[in-house]
Order: sequence, then C-alpha cells, then structure tokens
Amino acid sequence: MMNNKPILVFQTDFTYKEGAVSSMYGVVKSVDRDLEIFDSTHEIPQYDIWSASFRLLQTVRFWPSDTVFVSVVDPGVGTKRKACVAKTVRGNYIVTPDNGTLTHLFSDPGIVEVRSIDESVNRLATTTGTSVFHGRDLFGYCAARLASGIIAFDEVGPVYPIDQIVRFDIPDPWIDDQGLHGIFEIMDPNFGNLWTNIPIEFMKKLSLSYGDSVHLAVHHGSTLVLDTIVPYHPTFGYVAEGRPVLYTNELMKVAFAICMGSAKDTYGLRFGPSWNVTIKEVK
Amino acid sequence: MMNNKPILVFQTDFTYKEGAVSSMYGVVKSVDRDLEIFDSTHEIPQYDIWSASFRLLQTVRFWPSDTVFVSVVDPGVGTKRKACVAKTVRGNYIVTPDNGTLTHLFSDPGIVEVRSIDESVNRLATTTGTSVFHGRDLFGYCAARLASGIIAFDEVGPVYPIDQIVRFDIPDPWIDDQGLHGIFEIMDPNFGNLWTNIPIEFMKKLSLSYGDSVHLAVHHGSTLVLDTIVPYHPTFGYVAEGRPVLYTNELMKVAFAICMGSAKDTYGLRFGPSWNVTIKEVK
Amino acid sequence: MMNNKPILVFQTDFTYKEGAVSSMYGVVKSVDRDLEIFDSTHEIPQYDIWSASFRLLQTVRFWPSDTVFVSVVDPGVGTKRKACVAKTVRGNYIVTPDNGTLTHLFSDPGIVEVRSIDESVNRLATTTGTSVFHGRDLFGYCAARLASGIIAFDEVGPVYPIDQIVRFDIPDPWIDDQGLHGIFEIMDPNFGNLWTNIPIEFMKKLSLSYGDSVHLAVHHGSTLVLDTIVPYHPTFGYVAEGRPVLYTNELMKVAFAICMGSAKDTYGLRFGPSWNVTIKEVK
Repeated sequence: MMNNKPILVFQTDFTYKEGAVSSMYGVVKSVDRDLEIFDSTHEIPQYDIWSASFRLLQTVRFWPSDTVFVSVVDPGVGTKRKACVAKTVRGNYIVTPDNGTLTHLFSDPGIVEVRSIDESVNRLATTTGTSVFHGRDLFGYCAARLASGIIAFDEVGPVYPIDQIVRFDIPDPWIDDQGLHGIFEIMDPNFGNLWTNIPIEFMKKLSLSYGDSVHLAVHHGSTLVLDTIVPYHPTFGYVAEGRPVLYTNELMKVAFAICMGSAKDTYGLRFGPSWNVTIKEVK
Repeated sequence: MMNNKPILVFQTDFTYKEGAVSSMYGVVKSVDRDLEIFDSTHEIPQYDIWSASFRLLQTVRFWPSDTVFVSVVDPGVGTKRKACVAKTVRGNYIVTPDNGTLTHLFSDPGIVEVRSIDESVNRLATTTGTSVFHGRDLFGYCAARLASGIIAFDEVGPVYPIDQIVRFDIPDPWIDDQGLHGIFEIMDPNFGNLWTNIPIEFMKKLSLSYGDSVHLAVHHGSTLVLDTIVPYHPTFGYVAEGRPVLYTNELMKVAFAICMGSAKDTYGLRFGPSWNVTIKEVK
Repeated sequence: MMNNKPILVFQTDFTYKEGAVSSMYGVVKSVDRDLEIFDSTHEIPQYDIWSASFRLLQTVRFWPSDTVFVSVVDPGVGTKRKACVAKTVRGNYIVTPDNGTLTHLFSDPGIVEVRSIDESVNRLATTTGTSVFHGRDLFGYCAARLASGIIAFDEVGPVYPIDQIVRFDIPDPWIDDQGLHGIFEIMDPNFGNLWTNIPIEFMKKLSLSYGDSVHLAVHHGSTLVLDTIVPYHPTFGYVAEGRPVLYTNELMKVAFAICMGSAKDTYGLRFGPSWNVTIKEVK
C-alpha cells in the first residue's frame, strides 16, 4: 500500500460556493501533505444536525475502519457547545461539535470513547482571534493531526463520559397488532424518496413479501397526511413511471418512492420524529 | 510514477446532497486504498441517459487511456437492463448500465468488447438484499476490482456481441443544397449555450469563414423556433454582451451562444433528436 | 513525504453540471499522473472576476507555499486579454487570465513576478482550432507542466511589468472623526453574511470591544440602505436566532450577519466598491 495514513472524509453545510472548504482542506494539507481528503457532502441543509447525524450512519460503514470523519454542522460555533472526537466500535474517529451529530452512530455501531478537543494544543495558532470557522481552525486542523499521527487519540483532550454525548431522541420502530410503526427518518433530497427507520425484517414478521400490496398511513403529528394502498417491491423500477411504491432502500430499511417522480413533493412529505409511519396488511 | 493503477472517474445523477457518492467511494477505497478517484459530474439531469452518453464523449478522450469510467444514470436499477463493462478502441473501460449510455462512445472512438457483470462474483457481498444502489454495490465495486487488478477484464463476466449494446438513434449531420443540417445535441446547462453535432469542417465546405454572417434556422419537430442571421466567430467574446453568435465549441463543432447571456433561456432552446438546426449562407 | 510535487487548486465559474471540469482535470493527469488536484470552488458567480479575486485572497494563504492555483473566470476567453502566471511573495503560482483576478493578491501578500503564457509552447496541441476553453487547453495544461517540473517558471513565457497587471480599484478602509469607513467587499453566498474590508484592529482604535453596541450605516452609492444599532460579538451565536450582529470573520475583518438567517436577503445587501459601510460608537 502506498499511503497507510487514514483517509479524511468531510461533511458540512458550507456548500462549495465560496472558499471555506478550500481553506479548510489547505490547512489539512499544510499539516501533512500526504493526507488524502474526500468530500462526503457539503450540502447538508443549513444547521440541520439531524441530517448530519444520519449522513454519518449512511456512509461511515462503507469506508475503511481507520477513516477519520469530520462533520461540521455547527450553528453554535464559538459558543459553549463541546468540540469532540469520538471513536466508534468499528474504529473510526468522528471529529465534530458535540451537538447531536453523534446520535445515530451512538446506537449503530456505538461509541467506545469520546474526548473534548483541547484548543490550547489542537487549534491552528495562526488564526487566533477568530472563532467563527472551527471547521478550518479546530476540527480540520485537529483531524489532520490525528490522521497524520502527530497526536494520538489520547492527546486530543480530556475524555468524558459517553452518556454525556448530546443526542436527539429517536423512537425505535415497533410492531403491534395494528402493524409496523416507525418514522420517516430522512429523505433523499435529490430523488424525493422518503426513508423510514423500519427494517425490512419487520415486513417478513408481518408475512409481507415482494409483490404484496400493503396499507401505508403517514401522520405528521396528529394529522393524517397519507393513507393509501401501495405495492411492495425490491426497487422502484417494478412499478410504472409516476406510481408510488414501497421498496427496500440501500440500508435495508423500508422506503417510499414514486417511480421517476418525487414522493416528497407529490405528497408534501418531510422527515423527523413527528412523521409517523404505519404499515399493515391489506385486509 | 508513484501510482500506476488506473484512475477511476465517476459520473452520476446522484448530486452531492446526501451520502450516496460518499458510500460509493468508500466501497472503492475499501477494495483498494491506493485507487485514485475523480468526480466527472454528479449533476447529470435525473434519468437523462442521453446526457450521460454525451458527457462520456466530452470527457473520456482527455483522460489517460487506461482510465476506468463509471457512469450511473440508471432509472432501471434492479430490473432487467444489463450491467456491463465496455472497452473502447482507445483502451478505456466504461462501467455502466447498458441502457443507452454507450451511444456516443460506440461511434467515437468505438467499442472493442463488452461484458455483462457477473453479480455472483463482482457484487459487494455485504449488501445482498438491496437492489437499489448498484452504483455502490455493483458498478463502483466492480470498477474498483478491475482498476485494482483484482480481476482482469475477462473476469468481469460473459462477453456479448457489441451490436447488442443499447443505443439511441442519433441522426448524422449532412450537407445538401439547402445548407448544413444537424441537431442541437447537448447544451451547456451553466452558460446556456447550445451545441450542434455539425463539425466545423462543414462550415468550410460551405465556404463560411470566421467573420461571416450566416442564416440559422432551428426547428423543434415541425415548429420553427428560431430563424435569424448571426455572425460566426472563433468565440463568443467577438460580439457585444447580449448578442447571439455561432462559434467553434470545445469539441470542434458549431455552437450557438449569447455573449454573457443564455441562448437556452432567451430563445427557449433545448436539445435532442427533435431539435433540428439548419445553417446556410446569407444570400 | 510521498509526493513532493506542488498541489494544483482550481477555481472557476464552470459549475460541475457538465464535463468541463472533468476534461480539464483529465488533461492535467495526462500531463503528469502524479499531480494532486483539489477543487477550490467551481461556483464563482458567472463572469464575476471580483469574486474570483477575493476567493484567492481567502484561500491561498492556507495552502502550502508551493501550491499552484488555477483561476478561470474568463468572459474574454479567446480575445485579447493576457493569459498569465503570477508568482506571489509567499511562493505560490497563480495561473489565470490577467483580467482583474489578481487584484487582491496584488496587495496581500503581493506579486513578485508575472509572465504571459507563450501559447506556442504551453498550449495543448491536440485542440488547436478551438479557442473557447482555455481552462483545459491553456491554463490547466500550462499549470500542470509547471507543477510537474516539465517547465520552470521562466519557461512559461515573457515577463512583463507587475504594475501592468489589470486590477480593480478597491478603496482602502479609513478612520476619521465620523467613525470607521469601508465597503462590503464580499458576501458568503451560502449563509448570507456580508464581509467588510475593515480590520478588527480598527474597532479597538475606536475603543470598541466585544459586547458593545455600535452604530452601523450602509450606503449603496448615495442611498442609505441600513442605519441601525447592532451588538458586536466574537461570533453570531452570541445573539438570538434571527437577530443581527457584527462579528469578527474568518479573515479577522468586521462582518455583518443575522444569527441563523440571511443578512443579504433580509436587508437586500450586496457587495462591491459602491457598498459603503460606516461604523461608529453609539453616543
């Protein structure tokens, strides 16, 4: 292997419209010319910590287990929220504000240790005096030092209890005699598909198979937004263009789409803990 | 040379708004840490296989001849369309659904061999059970194995006849006593220029030179959309801001622009086999 | 160190919607497979040379001092404007049309030498006949040859006097008995913050400290656009969501934001030499 230093993967809500990402990456390459950097996404919706958390769940597992992730969706930059590095059960490091971004990884695959970043050591010295760009001056810089081997994990800063990690409250999916229950946990903002947190194993428990029609009900809070019968298939291409379908998404959970259309726009669907989904057999 | 493994270049309609590209690249780097990856574009219009095909024509020739391209504009993912790897006359591999994406390269520079991907070997095993993300699980994974040298081209899967490759029907440009005839084959979605498939050699055959004014007529089907006299120049900067111009585009074909404006928006122009262009001398 | 060739960093107004960036990078990798390429941004507003100039100021200083930058915001491509390579005081090379893009770096950190690119040597030969894509055929190709060591700086082309470099006229900020005076020099197009060219040292000269309220007046030409009292803080997070604030931006200058909102949209603010900002003590 040519390069055995961990890869750095970044996600932010900065976009690529101006020089922020470039400055951040320049700092990384100035720490260590050999570090390899990838964009995960810089288009997380602004201030959307929930989405930042989910995107880590979606991506981290597919990278080598020593990969260092930097996540900067940080509306509280420069205020009291903690800056931290968490180590997952799998071995990955996540460098992030401790503001909810670790919610999903906390459950899957789990965090084994978390440390707050000691700014007196692991902050870029040349930009002292500004506190608005921790992506460049703190998170990116510290992650580069960690990936480069300049510091070990225990030199990031003081350890703190894992159960102090800030987390959103996400209800687990469940089954009862009314059917399968979960939430729309995220959407695909490009194709307009909605992803539930219901694993496809639940469908089997209800004796539902590909090709079956199922009853789908969606509530936003107490408002019934959608109540319909849809077919369940391996992928959207099994129904005609413009038709709705339940399918197995890339994370092996139940998702809702319109073939070559947008379920999000067509039905006005969004995601979060107030978007409740119920799936049951057609009687 | 430090790294003599072929570069991987990706184009999709995924956008960078969520974690799909990151997951796909993580799989590649998990196959072989040394592989170098480039984005061609992830903003091909959704499901627009024609544009995917054209973007390969526009880009492949400028990369080293061993570069492996992965194209995933794949509305039929998980259905019966073939997944394939094609080898071009130039030596490049193209990993793609066989759904029309190979149309332009089929003619220029030409395909020498095509193989369908054997999913029993060249599919990521850990995600068996989902069939919606072949970019990650099949195309990206297989391309990484090929570029890495883990498999040779003949281990991709069974060869099939080149003339079975799915292709759009694109009319060739021609000359008659009415002038030059072609289509708007693509647009520049950023600057709003329209690119014909008429080579600039045709202009010379009509004795048209830079600085001449020419007659441009555009039909969409049987509807005359534009009928005007425009100057022909090496580049748009030869006319005043806001003025229309025919010029020689980056692929040595005739294109239509408005200097620092959008021909697409100003005249309502689009592209495809139904957008017919006629150029003739001004009498 | 594994790779001791300078990094190439690109900024353009091409977007990533089509194949232009890919073709350009393919040419670079065809010149030298070992060159490492980064995107700075490809979303500079179309033809906005001022923004191109500012983005270099914002980013170049954070990259290694031998990094080669390529900037292509070039509405005059193929016309008489010079194509050049400038060397900064810091050691970086900037490959760009000489059309104003070097304005900010001319002052900070300064240019030590500039050479026009000799097209007879440093232009991609295979695309002779088209003059619309100098990013690929001239700037990218020449930058790759320079970074690769194929040519030395003095082989780029003939030197010309530094004071002939095309520059915008940007007024320096000043202090008088009416307060601090400057302009909105740029905005953050993502978060909607406006950045002045007033260094934070000026605030101290006026005895203004974090936590103070200050008087902010903005004129667009002779029109008073904004006249208000705002708090001055280290970062936007010190005020409530939706509240305006002056803060110290990432380049240690005074900036104006709305916490988790858009100052640009809320107040209709833009940037440039006609956007005058005055800051004074609250009496």
